[in-house]
Amino acid sequence: MPQAKLTIWCNANNFAHSARSLLRAGAEPHRVVFADEQDGQSAEQLLTEADVAFGQPPPDAAIKSSALRWLHLNSAGYTAYDRQDLRDALAKRGATLTNSSSVYSEPCAQHLLAMMLSLARQLPQSLDEQRGARAWSDDQIRANSVLLTDQTALLLGFGAIARRLVELLRPLGINIIAARRRVAGDESVRAVELSEVESYVPLADHIVNILPAHESTKHFLDARRLAAVKRGVIIYNIGRGTTVEQTALIRGLESGQVAAAYLDVTEPEPLPPDHPLWSAPNCLITPHTAGGHANESERLVRHFLENLNRFIANEPLVDRVF
Amino acid sequence: MPQAKLTIWCNANNFAHSARSLLRAGAEPHRVVFADEQDGQSAEQLLTEADVAFGQPPPDAAIKSSALRWLHLNSAGYTAYDRQDLRDALAKRGATLTNSSSVYSEPCAQHLLAMMLSLARQLPQSLDEQRGARAWSDDQIRANSVLLTDQTALLLGFGAIARRLVELLRPLGINIIAARRRVAGDESVRAVELSEVESYVPLADHIVNILPAHESTKHFLDARRLAAVKRGVIIYNIGRGTTVEQTALIRGLESGQVAAAYLDVTEPEPLPPDHPLWSAPNCLITPHTAGGHANESERLVRHFLENLNRFIANEPLVDRVF
Repeated sequence: MPQAKLTIWCNANNFAHSARSLLRAGAEPHRVVFADEQDGQSAEQLLTEADVAFGQPPPDAAIKSSALRWLHLNSAGYTAYDRQDLRDALAKRGATLTNSSSVYSEPCAQHLLAMMLSLARQLPQSLDEQRGARAWSDDQIRANSVLLTDQTALLLGFGAIARRLVELLRPLGINIIAARRRVAGDESVRAVELSEVESYVPLADHIVNILPAHESTKHFLDARRLAAVKRGVIIYNIGRGTTVEQTALIRGLESGQVAAAYLDVTEPEPLPPDHPLWSAPNCLITPHTAGGHANESERLVRHFLENLNRFIANEPLVDRVF
Repeated sequence: MPQAKLTIWCNANNFAHSARSLLRAGAEPHRVVFADEQDGQSAEQLLTEADVAFGQPPPDAAIKSSALRWLHLNSAGYTAYDRQDLRDALAKRGATLTNSSSVYSEPCAQHLLAMMLSLARQLPQSLDEQRGARAWSDDQIRANSVLLTDQTALLLGFGAIARRLVELLRPLGINIIAARRRVAGDESVRAVELSEVESYVPLADHIVNILPAHESTKHFLDARRLAAVKRGVIIYNIGRGTTVEQTALIRGLESGQVAAAYLDVTEPEPLPPDHPLWSAPNCLITPHTAGGHANESERLVRHFLENLNRFIANEPLVDRVF
C-alpha cells in the first residue's frame, strides 16, 4: 500500500493558478511538482523521482522512470502511449495508465447533440442568411427543418462518449444503431460489429463517427462506404480526422449524396485556410473543440484527485487504459 | 351524435397535393371542401355550409356560420380567435375551438434545445470563423464553451412546448425553474408564478421565453427585468416578439450584461434588413422557423384526423382552446 508521502509530477502546463492550487490542496499531504516551475531541472529528470505522473509524461522518460507506479493522462486520447514497450515496462513494475475520458465524454456528447440539432433546425443556414441578405426565408428554412424523432443514427464506436450521447438522445425518440469492435451483449441500444457496418450504413440518416485514431480505423469511412450511404445522410466526426477519407467525403458533399458534414476533427489540424474541406458544400467545421469547456482544468484536477484517493486506498482506478 | 355525412371546410391553402389527399382519404366518408378549389364561391360562403372548419377560418365568418360545431386551427397561435364575441357565439351553439399545439410542441422544443446547445458549444462562433479567417482558434473557442450541466434555466411560460423541453433537457442535468401564470402544484419542475419572476431572473444562466402574445405579456421582458439579469445570461425567444422590449435587449447585449440572445420571433416580422437587432452583438436570429418541419402538413392532417375521430365519437378533443 502506498502510504508514504507521494511525489506527484505534473506537466499540465496550461493549468491556470486556480487549478494548480486546487491540485496542491487536494493532494495534500502528498507533494505536487509542476515540471514548469522547477529551475534547473528538466521535466524528464524530475519524472525519475516521481511516484505518480499527471499530464502528458514523455513515454520514453516514463519507461525509464522506474519508481513511477501510475500515469494519469489529462486527455482522452492516448495514441502516443499505445506502445508495446510502454505496456511491457508498466506491466513489469505493476504500474497503471489511466486517462481523462470521463472528463471529456460529457462535453463531447453535448457537442455532438448540438451539431445534430443545429443542422436539423437549420441554424447554420439561418446564420448565413443573417450575415448575408437577411431575406427572412422562413418558408424555405421551415421546409428544410426536420425532427430527429424517428430518424436513424448509426454510431461508429461505442465508448464513454457514445454511451453518454445515447442517454442525451433518448428523449428525442431517434433510432440508434451502435457499431463497435466486439458486441458485448449488454449494450443499451442495438449493437452491431464494425466489421459488418456495410449492412447498416445505408439505413442511417446520421452517421456519428467517434472512432479513435488507430491503424484499424484509418480511412474507416472510405470511398466505398461513403458510396453506400443513404442519399441525404449527415456525417459527424469528433473522433479523429484520419478515420475519414476526406477526398471521398468532399465528393459526396459535392454530389449531394451526403447532405452535410459536421466535423470537429480533420487531417491535418489546424486545417490550412485554403483546404477544400472549408468550402465543400454544407461542410461545417469546429476546430477540435468538442471536449473543451470553461472549467476544463478544474474538472481534470477533480477527476485526478478522485483517482488519487482510489490509488491511495488500493482500489481499482477509473478510466484505466492498461 | 354527429353521424350524418359531415362537411369539412379547409383553407389550409399551403397544403401540398399529398397532404390534401391524405386529408380526403382519412376523412371519408365525410366531405372535405378546400376553399381554394371551388370556383365562384367565396371561402366565407362555403363556410356557412360547413360542420367543421380546419385551417384559419375568418373569425367574423365563423360567428355567422351557425352550423359550424368545431373549428380546428392549423396553428398553435390563436390570437386572432381570442375574442369574447367568438367565445360567446361558439358557446351558444355548443361548438369548440381547438388548435394544433401538439404538432408544434415537438419541433419548437427541439429548436430551443438546438439554440441552447449551439451557443453552449460555440457553433455560431465557429461558423463565423469558417466564413472568415479560418484561424483555428481552438484555445479561445474551447475556453468559451460551456456545459449545460448544473446551469440554471428559467422558463417563461409552461405550456406544451415548455413541458416537452423539460423532458429533452432532463438528461443534461440542468436546473429548471418554470414561471407560469398560476402554479398548479403538479408541475414536473420547480414552478413559480410569473408575477414573482423578479426574484428568479437574477438566478438564471438561460432565460427561455415561450410566452404567447397577449396584452398581459406585452414587453414582459422590459428594461427593468432585463436590468436584473445575471451578467452573462443568454436569452431565447420563440414566443412572440412583442413580449420583449427590444431596445432594452439591444442595450443589454451592447453592455455585455446579456451575453447572447437567440430569437426566433421579433417585432416586426419579417425583420427589415436594416433593423438593429440583426447586428446587435451576439444576437442570433432564426426567421420564425421553430415550429417548421419537412412533414409539417402531414403531421397537421394526422393530428386533425385523430381529433376528427374523437369528434365523431363524441369524445373530448385534444388541444382545446375553448
